[in-house]
Amino acid sequence: MPPTVKLAEYLFTRLHQLGIQSIHGVPGDFNLELLDFVEPSLRWIGSCNELNAGYAANGYSRINGLGALITTFGVGELSAVNAIAGAFAERAPIIHIVGTPDRAVQDNRTQIHHTFNDGNFRRFALIHAQITVAQANLIDPRTSPAQIDAVLEQCLIHHRPVYIEVPVDMVTAPVSAARLASPITIPEPIPSRHRPEALALVLQRIKASQRPMIFVDGETNGLGLRKELHELLEKTHWPTWTSPFGKGLVDETLPNFHGVYMGKEKMHQKSFIDACDLILVFGPHFSTTNSFQKTAVPNPAASISFAHTAIHIGDRKFEDVLPKQFLVDILQALDEIPNVTKYEPYPELETPQGLVRSTCLTPGDGPLTQKEFYLRLSPFVRPGDIVLGETGTAGYGTREFALPRDTWYMGPVTWLSIGQMLPAAQGAALAQSEREAKSSKAEGGSKTKPGRTILLIGDGSLQMTVQELSTIIRENLNVVVFVLNNNGYTIERCIHGLNQKYNDVAAWRYLEAPNFFGAKESAQSSTFTVQNWADLSRVMADKNLADGEGLRMVEVFLDQDDAPAGLLRLLALQVEAQKSK
Amino acid sequence: MPPTVKLAEYLFTRLHQLGIQSIHGVPGDFNLELLDFVEPSLRWIGSCNELNAGYAANGYSRINGLGALITTFGVGELSAVNAIAGAFAERAPIIHIVGTPDRAVQDNRTQIHHTFNDGNFRRFALIHAQITVAQANLIDPRTSPAQIDAVLEQCLIHHRPVYIEVPVDMVTAPVSAARLASPITIPEPIPSRHRPEALALVLQRIKASQRPMIFVDGETNGLGLRKELHELLEKTHWPTWTSPFGKGLVDETLPNFHGVYMGKEKMHQKSFIDACDLILVFGPHFSTTNSFQKTAVPNPAASISFAHTAIHIGDRKFEDVLPKQFLVDILQALDEIPNVTKYEPYPELETPQGLVRSTCLTPGDGPLTQKEFYLRLSPFVRPGDIVLGETGTAGYGTREFALPRDTWYMGPVTWLSIGQMLPAAQGAALAQSEREAKSSKAEGGSKTKPGRTILLIGDGSLQMTVQELSTIIRENLNVVVFVLNNNGYTIERCIHGLNQKYNDVAAWRYLEAPNFFGAKESAQSSTFTVQNWADLSRVMADKNLADGEGLRMVEVFLDQDDAPAGLLRLLALQVEAQKSK
Repeated sequence: MPPTVKLAEYLFTRLHQLGIQSIHGVPGDFNLELLDFVEPSLRWIGSCNELNAGYAANGYSRINGLGALITTFGVGELSAVNAIAGAFAERAPIIHIVGTPDRAVQDNRTQIHHTFNDGNFRRFALIHAQITVAQANLIDPRTSPAQIDAVLEQCLIHHRPVYIEVPVDMVTAPVSAARLASPITIPEPIPSRHRPEALALVLQRIKASQRPMIFVDGETNGLGLRKELHELLEKTHWPTWTSPFGKGLVDETLPNFHGVYMGKEKMHQKSFIDACDLILVFGPHFSTTNSFQKTAVPNPAASISFAHTAIHIGDRKFEDVLPKQFLVDILQALDEIPNVTKYEPYPELETPQGLVRSTCLTPGDGPLTQKEFYLRLSPFVRPGDIVLGETGTAGYGTREFALPRDTWYMGPVTWLSIGQMLPAAQGAALAQSEREAKSSKAEGGSKTKPGRTILLIGDGSLQMTVQELSTIIRENLNVVVFVLNNNGYTIERCIHGLNQKYNDVAAWRYLEAPNFFGAKESAQSSTFTVQNWADLSRVMADKNLADGEGLRMVEVFLDQDDAPAGLLRLLALQVEAQKSK
Repeated sequence: MPPTVKLAEYLFTRLHQLGIQSIHGVPGDFNLELLDFVEPSLRWIGSCNELNAGYAANGYSRINGLGALITTFGVGELSAVNAIAGAFAERAPIIHIVGTPDRAVQDNRTQIHHTFNDGNFRRFALIHAQITVAQANLIDPRTSPAQIDAVLEQCLIHHRPVYIEVPVDMVTAPVSAARLASPITIPEPIPSRHRPEALALVLQRIKASQRPMIFVDGETNGLGLRKELHELLEKTHWPTWTSPFGKGLVDETLPNFHGVYMGKEKMHQKSFIDACDLILVFGPHFSTTNSFQKTAVPNPAASISFAHTAIHIGDRKFEDVLPKQFLVDILQALDEIPNVTKYEPYPELETPQGLVRSTCLTPGDGPLTQKEFYLRLSPFVRPGDIVLGETGTAGYGTREFALPRDTWYMGPVTWLSIGQMLPAAQGAALAQSEREAKSSKAEGGSKTKPGRTILLIGDGSLQMTVQELSTIIRENLNVVVFVLNNNGYTIERCIHGLNQKYNDVAAWRYLEAPNFFGAKESAQSSTFTVQNWADLSRVMADKNLADGEGLRMVEVFLDQDDAPAGLLRLLALQVEAQKSK
């Protein structure tokens, strides 16, 4: 007989092995026994509610590479559905663990609480089957370890959420510990018979190309090739853009980086890109919102796409040619190709740094505008920071940030669930602090300035999930929140209902949040107000904001009918419609 | 051609006809056009998030008889899933209207936002099919009116949520107005061939009974027979109990009303009830939590149950014998039965009023206890009030309230989703204010003291959905919130993990809520603190609390390891387990 461990120990050991240090969630009577085993493998972070826990796990996973949450059967797991669905849509790997009733209770169809009182215990798993990439119901100690391993592997491979049910009476069931000796990894690729042909085609295209470029989209994050991608950018010096989803995945200080490709929003980008004859596309995710209504989709005929588990060349798809290994092959081959296009002289193309610099050269004048706000705020970001731009005007505006090296960015992509970014900021900041503790330990405790998590969020979005500010306070996370107070859902006003009252929200006293949510008296001075450009300069230079501890909040007053450049045209249409009434 | 109306007008006119005056929800880009048509038929109440909107619609429906909410495709509707599921479990009739993308966008499988970017638009409807009793996707103007009517009828009949999808481009589609002339009603019963036999059996049992009683459970609310039930209680004077779910459905001031039947928790009740030979059971809903682990299920052999669309006599089920009509038959027959048991003298049985009176005779002494807190607070409730006891200690405790006439009660039943009762209080208070405006109009404007909505909620639950306090403030609803601050999830401590930190919550400054959430300066004095019995007496007598306007909050400090009588035994087990460690 091999040695055994308790099932909960097996599960949490696996999560720890995969690099998870903390797990979010909410206690409920069907997960309490499970929670007893979270420590010592992991740290428990109690969220205020399950939707927020799901969002937090999402933010954590983006920084840490993998995240997890624990909820309780029915009421708990169903509250998290929207967060899990968003993780599916945008490929965030999250393990959703649900504490379920005793097997006997389920088998007997007992009319227990957290059910529809009809003996049916499978409805909530059916719901999760719609929004997760793999599921396991751990009802047999003989198979549970293999089931856990199988769903974790799916989570890693697909970079999407998975669902694990743990009945209360299974928590302490002994299971074989044998598998724990072999870590779970993404399986090695099986050499594809299509690879030689695909490689030959790509090299031929590279040799022939007069005007090559690189386009990085957000699913790149799950391809595990960021190091190789960086090498490609440095080696080729080819002009590079990202999508909104891809922002932050490449070093934005490289001279050949030119920001987010905004399609018809920025015609000078578009005219260069439309004339390219070779576009290496990484991690494509062409939803309408991530591709500026499809106007920022690079020409498919010119594209070679590194997708999830295949390479697309024009309209041909080479299955099971894995992007990372394929890129390694290309990098090796590049050295041996003579006369790869080098762009001498380098074309005149806007860079984020250049745009920020030119804006900041003159002091701000007149009232605050969304158009300039983000460009002027951009220099506040420093290496090591995480920036989150909530769906809404903040999400549009932060796309123009010029990010320093070693920063992360999260903005609206496809799911666009407002309220998500506040709990996500909490989760991200937690992962960031764990990373820093680890690297400071590795470097023998040498202390550099800690990275901050910087959230930009509108008032309407903040109201959705506001209570998670208290988790930021309780865990003393290094978070700066800019609340963009423009009196309601301005992004909706841009779309429809400019002056309709359904786009209003209640007027809160936002800067009272630290006080209400229990910050120490001494920490309550960490709030700031920005009503004009001079305020912004002053606040950005304030040491208490830049280098303070825990939660800091800045309330920025913006006009209700103002929007960043990308939204202004929509807004203008609404203003016109309003006038013609 | 019959006259036409726009589809949105048809839908909202139907809701208005059914007595809905207000609709909760959150704007999103796929429902904005729909929201343009909410007025003038209905009033729009913007909630802070969709889960809260669902809970609010639930609270509204309990008082108004029917409720509705509007969300947006994907992100919006999925956030409301837990609230809709709870409405299914506990039979609250709610119409969930979802604004979905244009039909062309769906048909073309466009990779639009709020999807998984894969062209599949049906996942979220599949999820809702698990938690609603009927669904309609309005994609054809010819059939939309009949589809709407059919799901509304199902909602009324089953007293459970339904789901309606409205694509953006269908909002203004012309549809036939013909059906609007006939109101939607619950269909008249078709005389069942089983009815005569069932009636004969029941009357025979009534004649033979030496010891009859009445038991009222919560599904009674959907049976439409509260007037007839009241007549039965008054006519027979038979001893009557409710379940927790049934509390508030009968006049608790009747001398033959004896409170909530708590099974093994109150053996003096149980011994009387176990000896009864006839138990008329209304609206049975015997989940473990609503029946004190099945110990409060009346003896099935002695029971005649008035269930949803059938009468159960012993182990026989008479299908399609509708409870309301059947009760009318029985009431008529009762007059003609000689010697129906009258209980002379009436047995010695505890009444809620008696219990409250005897407790309040002596002044409170020693520290606050959960055991006495609710009994001493009970006299605060007056006719016209609504009482909500959130899942947790508050839900257990408020079961002992002695409710005056014309009050409503909502407490934990089966779904037990913590956080629900705060938004539900907002929805209930809104329905209450609409009721009062209507009846005051009917009575020519004569002014009686307005009913209040009184919420008792623990700190952990409050944190889940706290932002809806701002909706109460904005709508100036007459709500008194008692926040039971006992430093975390005490109900979970009773079950497992007495001193585990996962049962802690962050310490907030709860009484700062009105200030944070934007109450007028003048309203911010409406907060109170209770730390001992003298405080409680003082606060209960305070005019500003009892007769104030808008939101009032009372923070009550209770011991972390204290619980109402019904939970104390569980708690004791945990304390013992802790000691033996």
